[in-house]
Amino acid sequence: MDLKKLREDARLIFKSALDAVDPINSVKSHLKLRGNTITVNRKKFDISKFKRTYVVGMGKASAAMAQALEELLGERLEYGVVNVKYGHSLPLKRIKVNEAGHPLPDEPGLNGAREIIELLRGTKENDLVFCLISGGGSALLPCPANGITLEEKKNVTKTLLECGATIHEINTIRKHISCVKGGRLARIAHPSTLISLILSDVVGDDLDIIASGPTVADNSTFFDCLRIINKYQIQDRIPASVVEFLERGLRGEVEETPKPKDPVFRRTHNVVIGSNILALKAAKKKAIELGYRGTILSSLIEGETKEVAKVHTGIAKEILKTGNPVRKPACIISGGETTVTIRGSGLGGRNQEFCLSAAIEIDGIEDILILSAGTDGTDGPTDAAGAFADGTTLKRARELGLDAETFLRENNSYNFFKQLGDLFFTGPTLTNVMDIRVMLVS
Amino acid sequence: MDLKKLREDARLIFKSALDAVDPINSVKSHLKLRGNTITVNRKKFDISKFKRTYVVGMGKASAAMAQALEELLGERLEYGVVNVKYGHSLPLKRIKVNEAGHPLPDEPGLNGAREIIELLRGTKENDLVFCLISGGGSALLPCPANGITLEEKKNVTKTLLECGATIHEINTIRKHISCVKGGRLARIAHPSTLISLILSDVVGDDLDIIASGPTVADNSTFFDCLRIINKYQIQDRIPASVVEFLERGLRGEVEETPKPKDPVFRRTHNVVIGSNILALKAAKKKAIELGYRGTILSSLIEGETKEVAKVHTGIAKEILKTGNPVRKPACIISGGETTVTIRGSGLGGRNQEFCLSAAIEIDGIEDILILSAGTDGTDGPTDAAGAFADGTTLKRARELGLDAETFLRENNSYNFFKQLGDLFFTGPTLTNVMDIRVMLVS
Repeated sequence: MDLKKLREDARLIFKSALDAVDPINSVKSHLKLRGNTITVNRKKFDISKFKRTYVVGMGKASAAMAQALEELLGERLEYGVVNVKYGHSLPLKRIKVNEAGHPLPDEPGLNGAREIIELLRGTKENDLVFCLISGGGSALLPCPANGITLEEKKNVTKTLLECGATIHEINTIRKHISCVKGGRLARIAHPSTLISLILSDVVGDDLDIIASGPTVADNSTFFDCLRIINKYQIQDRIPASVVEFLERGLRGEVEETPKPKDPVFRRTHNVVIGSNILALKAAKKKAIELGYRGTILSSLIEGETKEVAKVHTGIAKEILKTGNPVRKPACIISGGETTVTIRGSGLGGRNQEFCLSAAIEIDGIEDILILSAGTDGTDGPTDAAGAFADGTTLKRARELGLDAETFLRENNSYNFFKQLGDLFFTGPTLTNVMDIRVMLVS
Repeated sequence: MDLKKLREDARLIFKSALDAVDPINSVKSHLKLRGNTITVNRKKFDISKFKRTYVVGMGKASAAMAQALEELLGERLEYGVVNVKYGHSLPLKRIKVNEAGHPLPDEPGLNGAREIIELLRGTKENDLVFCLISGGGSALLPCPANGITLEEKKNVTKTLLECGATIHEINTIRKHISCVKGGRLARIAHPSTLISLILSDVVGDDLDIIASGPTVADNSTFFDCLRIINKYQIQDRIPASVVEFLERGLRGEVEETPKPKDPVFRRTHNVVIGSNILALKAAKKKAIELGYRGTILSSLIEGETKEVAKVHTGIAKEILKTGNPVRKPACIISGGETTVTIRGSGLGGRNQEFCLSAAIEIDGIEDILILSAGTDGTDGPTDAAGAFADGTTLKRARELGLDAETFLRENNSYNFFKQLGDLFFTGPTLTNVMDIRVMLVS
């Protein structure tokens, strides 16, 4: 099979995946306006019954999502505020865009969060609020609880990361020392009707984890927070203001995060409008159009990148050999977020490392082509979104005097693929549903 | 779903896989005798045209394979010699069984190899020889080339392993300093008709790698051997007798291993009668019988065990969530040989480590059950073949005060599953087609 053709097909399949989770497309495909009726995921809302319609948002994609909403609702939209990462704003008519720091929250983010809170405080029972949530929404909506500074809050996260706390444990504490996370934003918007449109950048799309779940019920408690601090014996490393706040919470002097049965959520609707699996489904559809047996392996792939790559190539080789799990021409599609244990000092990202490891495994085997790339258009600290690997990769590398094993050991996949001309670029996509891999076997 | 039922189903599915690659069944299902016609993989041989029929064999399963052949051929069988590992012999009527050392070759193995060579030297053009090859066949048929001692040959392998040579490079040299490997056994049997029945314990079933391919053409050369020694700069660490022998080979003073077009192979038939993929196919059939959507993921799975496990559980979770790549009730079947990078000082094996890592990933998720086990009935240096993992594993471990993460870090999966009563035992199976994993999602 022509590798050039395979590469072009992989590009088209990846593009279909991207298009499906583009912030603007995602809003438009999940939100339909017909007369006065807005349909969101089969739920219908009569917009004429609401007095005013507002928009708030936080996350890298929130300006783009807001733009789609402006187009859709036009003059029905009263006003809005969204916080985005520096460089991610778009021209909007009725919605104010605040640029702020990410991944480290900063003062502009805090000010933006205050504006959003103020807006929501002013809403009434007969108002409708859209909340646009996307990746980075946690850092881009910083609002520490009373008496805790942003600096102290950042220190808590740092300490928790250092002591080896799980992401679940970190989130539990983060939610409790925030004015907006863990469902507290929904409480502020109560009793208005709240529709959260969510672009998921989290494996498994757990709503309470995406952006720390500002509009989602929280099951954890102040007691859990203190149990975690005790478990890791980090009382002395957590700022006194934080410990004091958590203890006041335990004594009932601070309100808990709203739990699943809280009346706050009676008028809250959380809808995932973009996610890794939605992107994979679009990729599958395109792959089938192009004549491949499109197969979604999983959107929930985690693990050490270079080992995950070996499992993928093991599947590709089996397809060639015995036609399992599907017969060729096949397109195996997978997604998720793998990890890279950095041992070397090279430049690279998860997707490029995936392709480098895969290239080693399929050296000399024709008829396999792999594209792995990040949906946000950047892979690690590089300007590439990912890379291509095929059975000729190592041969071409050897001709240039490049030893693939050495580049892999050095976590230097970027410089490997750069020299081969096998990097994959998309530019910033304004969306993020983690990584996608397209593996063609023909 | 009833976990007890899932566990029972997994057992049945694994048993079907084992039965399919049992040495006796494998011989009987691939070798059919009707009147005077022996059919092997669609090739027909008129046994009445041969003057005498012999059997030679090397590997852990060769006594069992020989037993099947004795039953099948009865008095038509003239004589035979097979080398097996200590404790692996079976009572045979016409075939001599030599027990020998494995994985380290020893003197009895060398003597057995000499008997096999002597037998083959005596065969004529109108004779038929069956060669029974299975895992361990390389160590169990030791026969260093002239002037090289067994000790020196072992040293070469050790040095190559230490300097980081690939398995392909090690095999290249091993074949060239042997009297029987790399197709040389076929040359000795020439011009008789030779049928090799092969139980593959190698990922991908590459015939020239299984037992170092005694009856298979070799593409490597004496020149390659010296290139490898030069590449790793180990001239000083390789015994002088070996270097001298290889140099004589380069000068054409020693015959090369037979190449693919060598007339030696005109009457040689290599047939894989048992392999990982054949076992997986049987497992799939049984899974479908039991009502699951049986799916072979791949028989070629390699990589770091605990990471490979994460990919598997990622697939199981996707099945539960969206019905990709197949809808439940599903049985995902995979095989191959993963690796374990030992960091701790615990007791375990690949399969038990797989299950421990998987158990952590599926903690609390009902309706997934995983069985991973070695087809030879032993997993690492333990008496278990493998283990079971499900969504209750960690809960039950916590009740016993066992921390799964700690046991995984210590590579102590055996003691983890032992205390839970979740080890899986088969006893020695006399076969080996590497590992098999059965993952049920219901």
